Amino acid sequence: MPNYTANTRDMQFVLHEVLRASEANEEMDREFTGAVLEAATKVASEVLAPLNAVGDTEGCVLENGIVRTPDGFKPAFAAMKEGGWTALDCDPAYGGQGMPYLLNCAVGEMFVSANMAFNMYQGLTHGAVSAIHTHGSDAQKALYLPKMIACDWTGTMNLTEPHCGTDLGLLRTKAEPQADGSFRITGQKIFISAGDHDLAENIIHLVLAKAPGGGEGTKGISLFIVPKVLVNEDGTLGARNAVSVGKIEEKMGIHGNATCVMNYDGATGYLLGDLHKGMRAMFTMMNEARLGVGLQGYAVAEAAYQAAVAYARDRLQGRAVTGAENPQGPADPLIVHPDIRRMLMDQKSFLEGARAFTFWGAQLIDRAHAGDAAAEGLISLLTPVIKGFLTDKGFEGTVLAQQVFGGHGYIEEQGMSQFARDARIAMIYEGANGVQALDLVGRKLAQDGGKHVMAFFEMVKAECKAHDDPRMAPFTEALKAASKQLQAAGMFFMQNGMKTPNAALAGSHDFLHMMGHVCLGLMWVRMAAAAHAALDAGAGDRDFYETKIATGRYYMARQLPACAAHLARIESGADPVMALAAERF
Amino acid sequence: MPNYTANTRDMQFVLHEVLRASEANEEMDREFTGAVLEAATKVASEVLAPLNAVGDTEGCVLENGIVRTPDGFKPAFAAMKEGGWTALDCDPAYGGQGMPYLLNCAVGEMFVSANMAFNMYQGLTHGAVSAIHTHGSDAQKALYLPKMIACDWTGTMNLTEPHCGTDLGLLRTKAEPQADGSFRITGQKIFISAGDHDLAENIIHLVLAKAPGGGEGTKGISLFIVPKVLVNEDGTLGARNAVSVGKIEEKMGIHGNATCVMNYDGATGYLLGDLHKGMRAMFTMMNEARLGVGLQGYAVAEAAYQAAVAYARDRLQGRAVTGAENPQGPADPLIVHPDIRRMLMDQKSFLEGARAFTFWGAQLIDRAHAGDAAAEGLISLLTPVIKGFLTDKGFEGTVLAQQVFGGHGYIEEQGMSQFARDARIAMIYEGANGVQALDLVGRKLAQDGGKHVMAFFEMVKAECKAHDDPRMAPFTEALKAASKQLQAAGMFFMQNGMKTPNAALAGSHDFLHMMGHVCLGLMWVRMAAAAHAALDAGAGDRDFYETKIATGRYYMARQLPACAAHLARIESGADPVMALAAERF
Repeated sequence: MPNYTANTRDMQFVLHEVLRASEANEEMDREFTGAVLEAATKVASEVLAPLNAVGDTEGCVLENGIVRTPDGFKPAFAAMKEGGWTALDCDPAYGGQGMPYLLNCAVGEMFVSANMAFNMYQGLTHGAVSAIHTHGSDAQKALYLPKMIACDWTGTMNLTEPHCGTDLGLLRTKAEPQADGSFRITGQKIFISAGDHDLAENIIHLVLAKAPGGGEGTKGISLFIVPKVLVNEDGTLGARNAVSVGKIEEKMGIHGNATCVMNYDGATGYLLGDLHKGMRAMFTMMNEARLGVGLQGYAVAEAAYQAAVAYARDRLQGRAVTGAENPQGPADPLIVHPDIRRMLMDQKSFLEGARAFTFWGAQLIDRAHAGDAAAEGLISLLTPVIKGFLTDKGFEGTVLAQQVFGGHGYIEEQGMSQFARDARIAMIYEGANGVQALDLVGRKLAQDGGKHVMAFFEMVKAECKAHDDPRMAPFTEALKAASKQLQAAGMFFMQNGMKTPNAALAGSHDFLHMMGHVCLGLMWVRMAAAAHAALDAGAGDRDFYETKIATGRYYMARQLPACAAHLARIESGADPVMALAAERF
Repeated sequence: MPNYTANTRDMQFVLHEVLRASEANEEMDREFTGAVLEAATKVASEVLAPLNAVGDTEGCVLENGIVRTPDGFKPAFAAMKEGGWTALDCDPAYGGQGMPYLLNCAVGEMFVSANMAFNMYQGLTHGAVSAIHTHGSDAQKALYLPKMIACDWTGTMNLTEPHCGTDLGLLRTKAEPQADGSFRITGQKIFISAGDHDLAENIIHLVLAKAPGGGEGTKGISLFIVPKVLVNEDGTLGARNAVSVGKIEEKMGIHGNATCVMNYDGATGYLLGDLHKGMRAMFTMMNEARLGVGLQGYAVAEAAYQAAVAYARDRLQGRAVTGAENPQGPADPLIVHPDIRRMLMDQKSFLEGARAFTFWGAQLIDRAHAGDAAAEGLISLLTPVIKGFLTDKGFEGTVLAQQVFGGHGYIEEQGMSQFARDARIAMIYEGANGVQALDLVGRKLAQDGGKHVMAFFEMVKAECKAHDDPRMAPFTEALKAASKQLQAAGMFFMQNGMKTPNAALAGSHDFLHMMGHVCLGLMWVRMAAAAHAALDAGAGDRDFYETKIATGRYYMARQLPACAAHLARIESGADPVMALAAERF
């Protein structure tokens, strides 16, 4: 079984030497975050990671209408609650600890690496908490938030229906207004993660439904609070609501989390936010939720990578072409072989860039919450990139890690298959990656007159100029080249997209990936500069900084060149993509 | 459940209009192959495909030492035998039908698309038949081949042991010579596909083991025939041999095929071929076996693609950006969206190229068997490309097909997860793809003084020159550019590989992929030329040929540009890949 240990050293580097977290928030100094991260590591390694394979093997079971989670999940969930880990960045007015979202992300990375399926129970609750916190009335906040922040009650998001996922305008779930101000909710929702379970005494479902008078399509949609067990005004639990689990889906992975078909049969619901403004309420949560899924993409890949490194060091097979490195042994360890290195370096250089990118995104969200409009614009632009790029590449990473194991990677016992199967979902849910690309190219590039993408390019340019140091040239030159290609792609969209909207959309996936590479390149410039600075300042931990620089050079030399291929694909335009009539496929 | 139908139209196009199969073998005319393919399609669609999900869900079970295959496999196997499908290209002297391997591949594609796990039972038998046919004594051939060609007995390959896969020099299974000329085989083999089952009355295991006096490493290895049930001289079955199943592995996919731990406890074995020349005997089978795995890579992807196309046509979600295409319906079908098109075209343009490439490879094997040394050299060069590139890209294709389904792709019920899980193994077994890359760059490029790779480049050059037709320019120009990049990569290896062997090996994966793209580009030039010729000749089926040309243009415009990125990676050399000490990962 893989043995996960959080890379707290690298997290601290990103938090303090790259993002300078304590500049915005004094409390977030190196000592404090170090203590939090060390405490979280223990939970991740000792409580969550040992249950990862259990969750995969046992899965969730529906018995007499109630979902039973895998063996050990209950005490582990209790431990999470007890440690206060579910409340880290939540509002102190409702029992939260009021720490930055940034710190929550660092801790979240560990929990996801250790056990993605388990962590979804609290992750989805976190999203529901944000929705109620932003859109709920004072009474709703007082009634639900303390229990949910403590995870005595968990939360869910109910969007998808059998006939509609991305296209929510088609949804059919009805909300009928009642005399007492509540609504009767009727309809079926599918793919509801953590839709039911035995970890909490209540589940607060947030449900999109159509109330009368809202008009066609997404305009008529409202968001409702639908508790599994109705909540009395004093916060005690009342009667069971008319919501039930139709079935648990058999999935490729994340078996430890119950993905449910939910039936609402005239269930009592309470409007959350404004009537007919449900889509807007959903969208305000999206940056955070999508960043959380991007984080899942690389966090699972981090766990897979660690297992691959351990295997590559341990497994003896073949000899180094440059001469035996383990002459006393029957063979050399796998890690001497260049193609094994290639796979490990592809993973490592991606993972460290992804961590920095995600943490930076979390920092931007903190700034946006504090009223920084530029940060809000920037994170709005970057969110689809974080979600789409990190989950695509994260999945690729798990496949590479599995490949390092050879035949043993295909055997479930080794745990490498689970990483790939679990990571696969992150490319799909919370908006499939094609939808992320559409959001980026069709909406975000032009948002506010293109102001945010311009600011992004200026930032990249400034970063390249900021390092007048020949040691930084391999970083800044590569980033400059990639950024130029990205701008050329944007230019191509501008010149052709007005006349032929498909010309932009046909290149959207490639643009998202290019932009992902440029963002990771930007992170690597910042990280390399920080590492050089630390070395120049005589930092003790030279190995760490030298490794950091070498890893970054790999990214710049061997990952950024993908941009050229993406640009060529984009510049081939819509014709090759759209040439065939639908019946010719 | 996905509904598979073999693309016999395209197979016929490749066989006759591209490869001109009847020029080498009169019998292989369009009418004859058409009849065979239509008969095989029925078996694939009606017998095998309906059992694909059953095999995945039920898997194989070990009961009292005997493996039980999934429900329905027995009658299906009987139907395969009865139809003569197991004997298609086998030697008529032993009951085979003596058809070209090329035709066997076309039929094999269908069977793999329909049910990869099922088809492995006969596929592995085919490999064992080839080994005995090439290396067996007349008596061995007479004793085993008729039964195996009829699949009354099936075959296996036993190479891997717990501590050694790729590095067979480490193997420990012992062969002790007995007075009667037989050997006592003792050891444990793992990952033995079709190691046991209830589909045949006997299983003929081919086992690599070390007999005394052969020296260290791979030099001491011999190949043995070890029947599950001993065979009397008259061909009747005798006593049970001392070989047993230790367990069935729980795997990511191909659950319908039993992957067994095999224990040989002083089992009776018979030397196959020369003593201590077991590796050579294995290698003679390798081109065919590896081509067969490359075929699996794209054949599973073909089935996944068909399912994705059906879903994209059927599922209504969103509106075309260029205006509603299904204005009467609540939404347009997915297939109107450019990013869905991108995913489908990536698959389609790969699959058709892969089919042509594999069939061409099979034709080269037929030519090599007929004594054509140039064909033998060329297929030896191309084999790692067929295996490595088609399985990497085939797996990617299954992931894209799954992505088209959105959330539904993650649910096992839809069958898309199975395609990805099944296809994953093809990147690993029969030599993991890193080993293929090593074989290509470390061995095949320099084989016979580099003669074969030179011949390949000449062939590509000649093909580019052969089409003095402006309509062909998008094809020939793109191929020329990619081929030039591939040659530059080869040059880089020559200039740096002698001094720094890791410089070549660090680029081996990228070189294999570049070469794969150039091979598929070459196929597309040939296919496009054939399609133009057919259109010029007034062929009736204009849709087919126009679609072929458009699909090829997509490949040239949007897939070949990957070569530039691969070249950049290669030219960055070994340093970025090898920079870190093993403990720094």
